[in-house]
Amino acid sequence: MPAMETPFKQVGLVARHSKPAIVASLRLLADHLAGRGFAVLVDKESATPEEAGPHPLIERYDIGKQADVVIVLGGDGTMLSIARLLAPFRVPLIGINQGRLGFMTDIPLHEMLDSVDAILSGEYVPEERILLQAAVLREDAEVANALALNDVVFSRGSVGSMIEFEVFIDNQFVYSQRSDGLIVTTPTGSTAYSLASGGPILHPTLQAIGLVPICPQSMSNRPIAVNDSCEVEVMLTRGLDARVHFDGQSHCDLMEMDRVHIRRYRNPLRILHPVGYNYYDMLRHKLHWGERLL
Amino acid sequence: MPAMETPFKQVGLVARHSKPAIVASLRLLADHLAGRGFAVLVDKESATPEEAGPHPLIERYDIGKQADVVIVLGGDGTMLSIARLLAPFRVPLIGINQGRLGFMTDIPLHEMLDSVDAILSGEYVPEERILLQAAVLREDAEVANALALNDVVFSRGSVGSMIEFEVFIDNQFVYSQRSDGLIVTTPTGSTAYSLASGGPILHPTLQAIGLVPICPQSMSNRPIAVNDSCEVEVMLTRGLDARVHFDGQSHCDLMEMDRVHIRRYRNPLRILHPVGYNYYDMLRHKLHWGERLL
Amino acid sequence: MPAMETPFKQVGLVARHSKPAIVASLRLLADHLAGRGFAVLVDKESATPEEAGPHPLIERYDIGKQADVVIVLGGDGTMLSIARLLAPFRVPLIGINQGRLGFMTDIPLHEMLDSVDAILSGEYVPEERILLQAAVLREDAEVANALALNDVVFSRGSVGSMIEFEVFIDNQFVYSQRSDGLIVTTPTGSTAYSLASGGPILHPTLQAIGLVPICPQSMSNRPIAVNDSCEVEVMLTRGLDARVHFDGQSHCDLMEMDRVHIRRYRNPLRILHPVGYNYYDMLRHKLHWGERLL
Amino acid sequence: MPAMETPFKQVGLVARHSKPAIVASLRLLADHLAGRGFAVLVDKESATPEEAGPHPLIERYDIGKQADVVIVLGGDGTMLSIARLLAPFRVPLIGINQGRLGFMTDIPLHEMLDSVDAILSGEYVPEERILLQAAVLREDAEVANALALNDVVFSRGSVGSMIEFEVFIDNQFVYSQRSDGLIVTTPTGSTAYSLASGGPILHPTLQAIGLVPICPQSMSNRPIAVNDSCEVEVMLTRGLDARVHFDGQSHCDLMEMDRVHIRRYRNPLRILHPVGYNYYDMLRHKLHWGERLL
Repeated sequence: MPAMETPFKQVGLVARHSKPAIVASLRLLADHLAGRGFAVLVDKESATPEEAGPHPLIERYDIGKQADVVIVLGGDGTMLSIARLLAPFRVPLIGINQGRLGFMTDIPLHEMLDSVDAILSGEYVPEERILLQAAVLREDAEVANALALNDVVFSRGSVGSMIEFEVFIDNQFVYSQRSDGLIVTTPTGSTAYSLASGGPILHPTLQAIGLVPICPQSMSNRPIAVNDSCEVEVMLTRGLDARVHFDGQSHCDLMEMDRVHIRRYRNPLRILHPVGYNYYDMLRHKLHWGERLL
Repeated sequence: MPAMETPFKQVGLVARHSKPAIVASLRLLADHLAGRGFAVLVDKESATPEEAGPHPLIERYDIGKQADVVIVLGGDGTMLSIARLLAPFRVPLIGINQGRLGFMTDIPLHEMLDSVDAILSGEYVPEERILLQAAVLREDAEVANALALNDVVFSRGSVGSMIEFEVFIDNQFVYSQRSDGLIVTTPTGSTAYSLASGGPILHPTLQAIGLVPICPQSMSNRPIAVNDSCEVEVMLTRGLDARVHFDGQSHCDLMEMDRVHIRRYRNPLRILHPVGYNYYDMLRHKLHWGERLL
Repeated sequence: MPAMETPFKQVGLVARHSKPAIVASLRLLADHLAGRGFAVLVDKESATPEEAGPHPLIERYDIGKQADVVIVLGGDGTMLSIARLLAPFRVPLIGINQGRLGFMTDIPLHEMLDSVDAILSGEYVPEERILLQAAVLREDAEVANALALNDVVFSRGSVGSMIEFEVFIDNQFVYSQRSDGLIVTTPTGSTAYSLASGGPILHPTLQAIGLVPICPQSMSNRPIAVNDSCEVEVMLTRGLDARVHFDGQSHCDLMEMDRVHIRRYRNPLRILHPVGYNYYDMLRHKLHWGERLL
Repeated sequence: MPAMETPFKQVGLVARHSKPAIVASLRLLADHLAGRGFAVLVDKESATPEEAGPHPLIERYDIGKQADVVIVLGGDGTMLSIARLLAPFRVPLIGINQGRLGFMTDIPLHEMLDSVDAILSGEYVPEERILLQAAVLREDAEVANALALNDVVFSRGSVGSMIEFEVFIDNQFVYSQRSDGLIVTTPTGSTAYSLASGGPILHPTLQAIGLVPICPQSMSNRPIAVNDSCEVEVMLTRGLDARVHFDGQSHCDLMEMDRVHIRRYRNPLRILHPVGYNYYDMLRHKLHWGERLL
């Protein structure tokens, strides 16, 4: 039975779809939680009615409205897509990986039941991550908008030529640039595509947004981190085939003179980690940094 | 009249199309050369019959067969497209820029007549540049092939996800990589896209091919330069939207398991520079390197 | 006469020593300010009694106690040394350059009098910059301590071998590293040595400290920015000739097992800029970034 | 007994000094080779007379005159110091490591006897590596000279300020630079300090010398690879505490206006690898590059 004080009564479960082994783990977890008195809600895209068994299925876009906490079985990619859905509802996330430690999915599968029990009983290390909110403006009309937990990425398309754009921060002109694109990243995204493009690692508690050029023609166009209270605006000045990507999972085609406004989303994402969680340990493990010598 | 000893009798003229000022310069040069006894051939894509006046027009793909030397008025982009056409015929090139020094078009417009006279009379600094020859193989059938003076570039398409591929050199496995792509560059191309992607500058006399990863996920995937006698093979193992680009001017869509074979083309390109030409001076000027202090 | 509302009565003047042209400007400024009713105090290291004329000389280390504001004529180097002296006293700084725009000395000499008048009458853009406070511990005894406005830099000495050290943040182990050294930088220092070593630009309003490895042997050791509320500790585990440098202007030799503790200094430095000052304009000018195209 | 056709009669043995386990391996190898009829010469710095037993000791600087081949037990550092001694005599080297694969010492200890037998009987993959020859000129007098298998490195000393120098290649001015220093590297050295400083990997068969700036103040100062037939000259124009290092194992203090001339040494170093040796396999292993996926 859940302890009196737990704020979590309804637990949503999401798994990376089309992985039979994961679905089995999801069912195991669902049964375990139901046995302990939690109301379990299973994401419809994660399991069939047969796979979910007695546990009710629920539309993914409704999960934030009904669940008090959501547990994700999968990798960082699954976390990203759920995080964008949950952010409006301030529902916290717990991440469980299968085998390979993720930047966000830090509970290994074999510790799943114990870790989840502990967290749901109130023993956890909470961490807040900012999201970005982007709007694409075409002649002053908004033609698209999206949230991103990792990054908003401007990039050339499949035609092999660079794009040109201008960057403004809080309406102040910063630079014009010719490059393969620009990554506007959260601290969470700083260990993803941004890192491959030469960007710095930004600690999650840093109130920062990173701007990281992708293969800039001018070598003085270097990564810059600005305050996350800023509004970043990117205007495409040249590029027939440019796009803006959100977490690498959705995108919007751009036309020349389109402007994209990016700011911190009003709600942060809350991730619940097991007691003992340490950001630097995770980073050192993922990036193969040197262990203590003494 | 051309001096007895000049090996150049037929002079081809090519200009970046659709720039009226350039066409006027082309006509000026054509009249000047005809007045000195050279047979002038004007590229059909560079001028209309009216613009060419008394000088015969010629198909671009025939220019290598008929001209003894070709003069290009334009930028490095025009040089690239002509170079690939001329390479099979071993016809040398002279490059004239309009205003902005190019990496290859090193004669300023206002020195055009004097410089061309001197070069055609035998006073020049010759420079040889290698080209790459690429063949795309699909299940052992060649589906495309092309030459490149700058680079052969593998890259992800407009979908925002990285591609995966394996690299072999002289049939020896080198590495598998997950990245935005790979630049296989000549020394000539080492100051173009490769430089923006973190590659080294390779001096034109270096018998080298550079392999430069584009935003590799693994930070230990660094640029490597190998002997230009090597055959480089890249096999796409994952990527639904990958392409291979040749000098950024043409491309071929790739399917998973396609292999691209790249080797040095049998003929180098010959560029004729004015006496006094110096590669390092050009580089220092283009890259804004520090001048002498003493 | 200074306006009623000016909080600035005593104005300290500091110039980069041993530059006659600067000393002349300093005297011009001193006379101008005295004429407008300010009490002018001239730094003893900046001018001789003859050069200072009627204006009283003052010890440099006393300037923070007596002046309400200090004007620096010189480059960023002069600003650094004065900033460390003024920080304990919360006295703001105004920076005037001679010819070449500095990252901090943003008033050109020919606008000196007008700009200073405006700022002293209350028309200015204030900017706060954090400093770092470092203490060197040897077997738990503090053997040295210093402030830094730019950076605290660990580095190998003149012997040609790398050093090894361990990094802790808030007592959590981060990594061990073998490299030429490590730059612990403020946002102010992020455009100095840190930038040459591959670090990101950190906007001054960002509450961040950057850790930037210098030529690390492991390629996954990348720059990281952490919250400026953190305590950073670096312990030298191997290196016979290692040093820690403060703003590149003073240093302390290190012994193996020495620990250096670094945290944000309690007082920020306050810089007063002329109205119209814009950090991005300054950056774009200094780094030769692209201007607006449209 | 050595086969008739072996060109190796006298075998020199060198070990990294002061490692008892290595000395035991050296003795084992010496006894084994003597038993097979080779004349064994043991380096005096590698073993005491007791450790060498019946095998004659020889001065290290004489080893190149007397041995037909030299076997090194140790790491890449030991290879470097022996290589510089052997290069004048064209004596080939065999490298054996203890546990950790080296870039050059590629035979693991447990395969030592079999691999050495095979190589000495003529079954080997030879590889040639260039060395650099450097001369330090002060007012036209040579004050020092040295060989280097990895690199000739200019660097600032322990005072924390950058140095300034000018670079010439074949007497043509290339650039002036302000930085922590400059690495002039062979292909062999390209995987050592040069790689940590952002330099490219240069394949050993590439006839190249790399110039890699160390933390240059100007971001456009990028690594460049030039033909190894070039003479590189570096002139120190500013720096009170600068040095030039040879393979990081010896150095020479520099004075302002000193010039260092660097060119390829007349003899390459010959390394004998076991059959099956593959440069890319070694690189992939050392740099943790991705293995084949298919």
